[in-house]
Amino acid sequence: MRPRAYLDWNATAPLLPEARAAMIAAMDAVGNPSSVHAEGRAAKAIVERARAQVAAALGADGADIVFTSGATEAAALALAGRGFSGAAIEHDAVAAWIDPTLATSRSGRVTVDDSAAATLQLANSETGVVQDLPAGLAVSDLTQAFGKIPFAFNWLGCDMGLVSAHKLGGPKGIGALVLRRGLDIAAQLRGGGQEMGRRAGTENIIGIAGFGAAAEAASRRLANGEWDRVDELRNILERALEAGATGTIFVGNDTRRLPNTSCIVTPGWKGETQVMQMDLAGFAISAGSACSSGKVRASRVLQAMGFDEGAAASAIRVSLGPGVTEDEVLRFAEAWLAQYRKFRSRAA
Amino acid sequence: MRPRAYLDWNATAPLLPEARAAMIAAMDAVGNPSSVHAEGRAAKAIVERARAQVAAALGADGADIVFTSGATEAAALALAGRGFSGAAIEHDAVAAWIDPTLATSRSGRVTVDDSAAATLQLANSETGVVQDLPAGLAVSDLTQAFGKIPFAFNWLGCDMGLVSAHKLGGPKGIGALVLRRGLDIAAQLRGGGQEMGRRAGTENIIGIAGFGAAAEAASRRLANGEWDRVDELRNILERALEAGATGTIFVGNDTRRLPNTSCIVTPGWKGETQVMQMDLAGFAISAGSACSSGKVRASRVLQAMGFDEGAAASAIRVSLGPGVTEDEVLRFAEAWLAQYRKFRSRAA
Repeated sequence: MRPRAYLDWNATAPLLPEARAAMIAAMDAVGNPSSVHAEGRAAKAIVERARAQVAAALGADGADIVFTSGATEAAALALAGRGFSGAAIEHDAVAAWIDPTLATSRSGRVTVDDSAAATLQLANSETGVVQDLPAGLAVSDLTQAFGKIPFAFNWLGCDMGLVSAHKLGGPKGIGALVLRRGLDIAAQLRGGGQEMGRRAGTENIIGIAGFGAAAEAASRRLANGEWDRVDELRNILERALEAGATGTIFVGNDTRRLPNTSCIVTPGWKGETQVMQMDLAGFAISAGSACSSGKVRASRVLQAMGFDEGAAASAIRVSLGPGVTEDEVLRFAEAWLAQYRKFRSRAA
Repeated sequence: MRPRAYLDWNATAPLLPEARAAMIAAMDAVGNPSSVHAEGRAAKAIVERARAQVAAALGADGADIVFTSGATEAAALALAGRGFSGAAIEHDAVAAWIDPTLATSRSGRVTVDDSAAATLQLANSETGVVQDLPAGLAVSDLTQAFGKIPFAFNWLGCDMGLVSAHKLGGPKGIGALVLRRGLDIAAQLRGGGQEMGRRAGTENIIGIAGFGAAAEAASRRLANGEWDRVDELRNILERALEAGATGTIFVGNDTRRLPNTSCIVTPGWKGETQVMQMDLAGFAISAGSACSSGKVRASRVLQAMGFDEGAAASAIRVSLGPGVTEDEVLRFAEAWLAQYRKFRSRAA
């Protein structure tokens, strides 16, 4: 049997070896970080080391990192009850709390009017389209950009940022809200005084250790140019598909995108069908974002960009990472084009 | 240097080997449980296996297990905005959301009037006192009892239960809300449709795998009588202290307690001081609950039981577990009694 190829890095990235090692080491820390004895202080030190690693990787020295159970919780902490405006291309975890009034262009770019009361993602999970954030933005979802393109939180000019560990090679179930220096926020999870009173609950030590190590490793790999190679692979993929398929659209390729993301629309060929066909052929890809099981509907992101429902239901997302090989990309292109030809002959 | 003895199991328990192994195995699962491809389905299977393990360990077959980032989040999900009544002895994460009107007796027992609109813990973290839950209770915090005494959620007669993995040998940062069959609840974390729409956010796969394995192992160890031995150790401890110290109170020893918990009040000798002295002597214990770092104040639990502020500030908690040896307990008693004699001679 041929080995499978995992091409769904925007849904979740494989655990980095550095994160794995840090997590296994943290398993030996017996204490509760809130305890004052030696075992408690040792556990606390793991949390604080990871906090410094995440801050450094984010270019957020001096900003506050509040660890949460993921970007979804960070989004609720930053946005719930605030009535900020945002675009329809935001992730479900952000969309749940915003007034979706900001317009999105055909190429996926969003115009913000009142930035102090708005949220805008740095990069889109489905298309990879990267935004220029306006000055004085209230909140930015940095989840998909973190670790894939260079940026510094302190230079983005936004008050709050949302990040998640598992998109950059850390474990699932841990993320953070980044707060500009001097800003405070009311806790939603109440009880103990953890995270300087901003988020109660015994800290996920093992997950936090993994997040810190993953952020540090991902940021080093990014600086070392590993994502330039990913960008080349994405171009190889798109050229191969383009050469064999007519009428297929690579969404966002007229603007700045993440180096790893290809959103491919083949009108009339359901994305859901393509995902299943590719799964059987040994490739993990997705149709839209992977937020919730069984939820198969036309991409809200593409509809916001002006695609009609049929086109928006015909999208797949292929998202690569540093662990993907050229052979995998070429095998995928071959398998996809074989199915594409069958689709065309059925449609003809 | 003498090895340290960890006697603070109610703050957090050491990770069980079964949990460690399950977590390391789960690190190899690449997919997002919401993805429909093979990698996603494999990740989903890990979550569902753990859900069955937790339900079985809790005696909650047919009930719904909603994984959360810990008991603190489960408490918010069950209690926020509901105005339920409860006692002042509840944990901070529960106390944050209740009307603290229920009275507590001197031996730590709580009387509930309107059980359908009340919450009552099954066991107290500081004293170990176990409650008889009234029929039809809305919510019970099962965190400290789970894994230490036998009970079945389905026979407790309450609508919702709160549990945490790290108190029974699973990892920190994962817990669950248990819902009686047929009951539903509105999500607080919104976004993706995970956990049947009750809790959005990519699942903490590694933590969940550890929780499932820990719950299964803890419940097997409990059935095998390992906590009977812990009960014997606790009695050895209390007899040794009693023999050498006069005027020391063992809180709750006139009623049913968890087998591992000893809450020791020596009026006039600050619990905080004792914790530091014992830490230097190589023993991890606590003064009250370990909810938040640096928070040193008189135990709210003991004050609710009628102790005055001075006595409530003079409490320590020694909490044992199956990994503790008789030698450790006797060494602790010896070290504590040495400090106790110094305290008495200073006080004289």
